[in-house]
Amino acid sequence: MTVVYNRVALIGLGLIASSMFWSIRRGNLAKEVVGYAKSEKSRDIARSIGLCDQVFDDLKDTVENADLVVLCIPVGVMSEVVAQIAPNLKKGATLSDVGSVKRAVIDAVKPLVPDHVHFVPAHPLAGTEHSGPESGFASLFDNRWCIIIPTPSSDPKAIDQLTRLWTGMGAMVDKMDAAHHDLVLAVTSHAPHLIAYTMVGVADDLSRVTDTEVINYSAAGFRDFTRIASSDPTMWRDVFLSNKDATLEILGRFTEELFALQRAIRTEDGQMLFDYFSRTRTIRRGILEAGQDTEAPDFGRSLTDKNKE
Amino acid sequence: MTVVYNRVALIGLGLIASSMFWSIRRGNLAKEVVGYAKSEKSRDIARSIGLCDQVFDDLKDTVENADLVVLCIPVGVMSEVVAQIAPNLKKGATLSDVGSVKRAVIDAVKPLVPDHVHFVPAHPLAGTEHSGPESGFASLFDNRWCIIIPTPSSDPKAIDQLTRLWTGMGAMVDKMDAAHHDLVLAVTSHAPHLIAYTMVGVADDLSRVTDTEVINYSAAGFRDFTRIASSDPTMWRDVFLSNKDATLEILGRFTEELFALQRAIRTEDGQMLFDYFSRTRTIRRGILEAGQDTEAPDFGRSLTDKNKE
Repeated sequence: MTVVYNRVALIGLGLIASSMFWSIRRGNLAKEVVGYAKSEKSRDIARSIGLCDQVFDDLKDTVENADLVVLCIPVGVMSEVVAQIAPNLKKGATLSDVGSVKRAVIDAVKPLVPDHVHFVPAHPLAGTEHSGPESGFASLFDNRWCIIIPTPSSDPKAIDQLTRLWTGMGAMVDKMDAAHHDLVLAVTSHAPHLIAYTMVGVADDLSRVTDTEVINYSAAGFRDFTRIASSDPTMWRDVFLSNKDATLEILGRFTEELFALQRAIRTEDGQMLFDYFSRTRTIRRGILEAGQDTEAPDFGRSLTDKNKE
Repeated sequence: MTVVYNRVALIGLGLIASSMFWSIRRGNLAKEVVGYAKSEKSRDIARSIGLCDQVFDDLKDTVENADLVVLCIPVGVMSEVVAQIAPNLKKGATLSDVGSVKRAVIDAVKPLVPDHVHFVPAHPLAGTEHSGPESGFASLFDNRWCIIIPTPSSDPKAIDQLTRLWTGMGAMVDKMDAAHHDLVLAVTSHAPHLIAYTMVGVADDLSRVTDTEVINYSAAGFRDFTRIASSDPTMWRDVFLSNKDATLEILGRFTEELFALQRAIRTEDGQMLFDYFSRTRTIRRGILEAGQDTEAPDFGRSLTDKNKE
């Protein structure tokens, strides 16, 4: 593959940044990738596992001479970091991010970006429940979507270049505006996460059912919620605070539907339940066809070898 | 392993029954396993894939001479089936089931069981989102729990024999009373399923977000809900109708908690959100330690090979 940027700077060295590094290296998409993490421990780990060609102790040093700077940090601290690095950003460089929320990021960051820097927000829809510099892997973005959010002043060439980086990392790229992105993500990600956190919280808090029982009998469905609900707390706090309106809108719809189903249970309306549960199978088929999940039986996930013989 | 029963009869040939067959065969736990399915199509499939030593077209023929009869059918039809087979059950035989709900099953079935038959309800906590005779595999129960619910009149020998069958199939066996079982399962399985169905229903029904968007961007969390929400609709309708009280109790608690979290988002109480999201990580660790899930990163499930090189 062709080199897309000479020098890429990754700010924050968690799951996404570390996966970006391995993926850029796999595709030979940049001549050099440098990185910075706020915590010394993360920087030490990064150095010890060869994450980034160079890890800097100073934020400003990290971005100097970088053609692309990517903010891979919680949404809540982005404006603070951009305020610090703005004077050191190279003329003609692109500033991007990987935040799960876009309108709040644009509102907070855009006013701080110098005129000679292209600001092109992006959001790769990929992740695992793990975090930290050691959690990344090169194939994380393969066959996953990355949404690029052009701002009115985004340079088409800068958008095109960032698109090539993401497709080079294996992703499929889509473009949409910030408000629509935030609504779509409230449905596909933010509301499901909050719901999973809630369910796990309820289970943890029941005095009549012990934690051991919850843990032992989790394979019956609950387990999938705990996986989602073990995602990074700081990141998710920031997501909900910065995508407040869309998340609350979807949660409002969710509660309404849940009440309708609770009512069907209470009134023993079996037909309503059956119809509802049949309808939800269609979306699952679409996800399989779109290659966004596998059909392998999953509830017994550690034991999928069909040793029938 | 030692043969536990001479002849086992499986009523219903879906995921659980077919997995039981392959598992019993793997462990050589019965001399003969016969089966019955209501639909001719399922019986034909079973015969074509060698599922069961013999597949009967008639329910009564299936249970004659069986030392163990296991009801692997939706909870809602169990009493109807037991009324049919009761006169043909062998003296001293054990009648068991694999239903996800226990109090309703016992209330409906027990009065129909002849005095000379041992009724020992059970519930293996294992499954996948797939159903039908072709979905089973021998290792489904390995390292999973099976809960046996002794009724006051259950013979200790019959309980012990059934326990040996389940441990022979790879499961760990626990015993509890029906009401407690139903509450534990409402937490670990029934409420999570209803919540997943609800979230998928909401996503499907939003006019401002297209189905294609929901499908493409599902990898960000939503996908796990669709997997749970593609489980068998008939089975789940019956589960909710027959474990109504416990499910509604847990859903009530869930709604209460969800409102508290919604309020924290609305009032921008970041500390409350952070604390909540940190707490839910503990249960996840317990599940991993109990061997009920793997630590492999799962949100990018089809792409877990860490090809860093």
